[in-house]
Amino acid sequence: MVTRDDGTDVWLYEGKEIVNIGLNAVAGRPPDEYGMEPTALHEMRAGCYDIHERVRDMDANGVLGSMCFPSFPNLCGQLFSRSKDKESALPILKAYNDWHTDEWCGTYPGRFIPLMLPPIWDPEEMAIEVRRMAAKGCHAVSFSENPEKLKLPSFHSDHWDPFWQACSDEGTLVCLHIGSSSSLVVTAQDAPIDVLITLQPVNILQCAADLMWSPVLRKFPDLRVALSEGGIGWIPYLLERLDWIYTRHHAWTGQDFGNQLPSDVFRDRIVTCFIDDPTGIVIRDRVGIDSICWEADYPHSDSTWPTSPEFFMKSMDGVPDTDIDKISHLNAMRHFQFDPFSVRRREECTVGALRRKAHDAGVDTSPLSVESRRTGPKDTSSTFLTKKH
Amino acid sequence: MVTRDDGTDVWLYEGKEIVNIGLNAVAGRPPDEYGMEPTALHEMRAGCYDIHERVRDMDANGVLGSMCFPSFPNLCGQLFSRSKDKESALPILKAYNDWHTDEWCGTYPGRFIPLMLPPIWDPEEMAIEVRRMAAKGCHAVSFSENPEKLKLPSFHSDHWDPFWQACSDEGTLVCLHIGSSSSLVVTAQDAPIDVLITLQPVNILQCAADLMWSPVLRKFPDLRVALSEGGIGWIPYLLERLDWIYTRHHAWTGQDFGNQLPSDVFRDRIVTCFIDDPTGIVIRDRVGIDSICWEADYPHSDSTWPTSPEFFMKSMDGVPDTDIDKISHLNAMRHFQFDPFSVRRREECTVGALRRKAHDAGVDTSPLSVESRRTGPKDTSSTFLTKKH
Repeated sequence: MVTRDDGTDVWLYEGKEIVNIGLNAVAGRPPDEYGMEPTALHEMRAGCYDIHERVRDMDANGVLGSMCFPSFPNLCGQLFSRSKDKESALPILKAYNDWHTDEWCGTYPGRFIPLMLPPIWDPEEMAIEVRRMAAKGCHAVSFSENPEKLKLPSFHSDHWDPFWQACSDEGTLVCLHIGSSSSLVVTAQDAPIDVLITLQPVNILQCAADLMWSPVLRKFPDLRVALSEGGIGWIPYLLERLDWIYTRHHAWTGQDFGNQLPSDVFRDRIVTCFIDDPTGIVIRDRVGIDSICWEADYPHSDSTWPTSPEFFMKSMDGVPDTDIDKISHLNAMRHFQFDPFSVRRREECTVGALRRKAHDAGVDTSPLSVESRRTGPKDTSSTFLTKKH
Repeated sequence: MVTRDDGTDVWLYEGKEIVNIGLNAVAGRPPDEYGMEPTALHEMRAGCYDIHERVRDMDANGVLGSMCFPSFPNLCGQLFSRSKDKESALPILKAYNDWHTDEWCGTYPGRFIPLMLPPIWDPEEMAIEVRRMAAKGCHAVSFSENPEKLKLPSFHSDHWDPFWQACSDEGTLVCLHIGSSSSLVVTAQDAPIDVLITLQPVNILQCAADLMWSPVLRKFPDLRVALSEGGIGWIPYLLERLDWIYTRHHAWTGQDFGNQLPSDVFRDRIVTCFIDDPTGIVIRDRVGIDSICWEADYPHSDSTWPTSPEFFMKSMDGVPDTDIDKISHLNAMRHFQFDPFSVRRREECTVGALRRKAHDAGVDTSPLSVESRRTGPKDTSSTFLTKKH
């Protein structure tokens, strides 16, 4: 990482400067500054890049466990796959995976679910890396919601079979994050930015349909896939549509789900995720109550930080505790083989306990403008979590 | 229309032959023949093109009123806009509108909601035609879910203002049908056809987002728009997303909905529609109970004909009669200024009364293969509606 003459911090990779984009790291900024462009490390909350501050910010938000997707290497490691020097790319990617698992996640055991990147330019190497990382305890891998958009074979080819096989063997969950096809949903050239923001998750809806009708899930019956940051409210609609089409059209399209319906396969094998999705919670049984996970999206602009528990509980009105437990932690723990209670007593893991810890440590969550971060805070009005005096 | 040497029937327009596509007119075929390609008139149910047979098929399905979107001129008249001879195109389009309203719909008063096509190549002429047709009692116009995909200006430009103004003045509902952008949602070149069928409605989701963030609805506060064949189960998810983005981002994106939220505007002004959408019915209040309309999609492959009332009532389990009335007819009557009860006593309009009429008229709804239509029926096994003997 280098600091440019204008004071901004950029990544340098194979001689190319890569800037951070504004909406990536806006936690703790006033909303009217969300669109401002990047940015130096000192303009962000330190929790965006410092693991110790990160955990303090998680504590302040009552969040015990977190999975961190990458920005700079792109969501499924596209940066490395675009390397001119592929011979260096593989060890660099492996170094990223080791750093992410051993240093970033490993510094705070029981607080992070490690997520590896795959060398998407070589399915055999992907399989080798999945197995290597599984042996280290990493059981999640980030892949593309649509590899064809990355100029790679689609879900419908057998190109990726070594990778799917390794994930299936190792119980490694394949995470398809919104945006991981590196393509935007553009309705019109003159559409305002709000349209783009609204439609970001549409690619993952397309991904879900693409995956469901592809051979992947039926060919690898133990494989599980997560639709990361995909939302849940749209899922029952899609499942009804899949079943409707299957029932009416399979006689001529030739699709075969044996004695199941597409919706059965989806609910068994696809892990879902939401930030704030009240309707999705109302219809949670139609989404699949054993697959829904919750996320805070810190430090992005969609994040509910630092009041995530308040947003969460508002949408849990009338939901029984057994379902709340599944959605808030049990589903994620099971699907990702993540057991924070093995390293920390359960009563230390509650929202209240974590927030008390943050309070005692003096974590300040008040919004700070970029200007304030440069010159020191001017606004000392407190939020619900005040700095310890 | 001409019959080719191979026995197929095609439309001839400016010297170009235009075939019908298989999934368009498959009502009454066994599902394993849905994918079969076109087709001569005698291979279809006569209700696909003969108004008298059409009404008999509606009776057999317990359907009182229907709105007919065009196939051959394309959903919003793209055929005419592609004419080499634009001077002839306008009177031909007007002749289509007159035929559709006076002859097709007019032959059976109180059974059809007329739907005009606009001359999309000229917004001033669109306005003139909207006003001319409104004077004849036609209060619905088919337009494109995304005009930019038709190489025309988007919803975000002021290009269409004369058209929006005329629709607003005349109380003419603008119908945006799935597929009216003439563009397909393609995930991958080798994706099976099921993916395409599943994702057809995704364009209308994009259309809804595009429209909501465009100036159109705020600039023309009396204008109403219908998302024709768009489904409803996905709508609460979209509305939550619109409100979320508006609340969090409007400070920097500059969007302004005054003292409303985007979801308020949507529920006030956008008419929605479904074929079979059980989850959408469960969450109908979040969709907007005063805007949901029902459709049968006869004679397309998604149609529930001839058992639409049975599908409909299955999804109405537990729904109060006031809501069933709104969804089954009152919403459509109000939004489209359609009053079938002015020409027919209410008790003649029930599913039971209509089906009795079809039964007495000997309407046969048993599936017939293409081969049978050529050679006469072989399979005489009855369905729930048997031919009168």
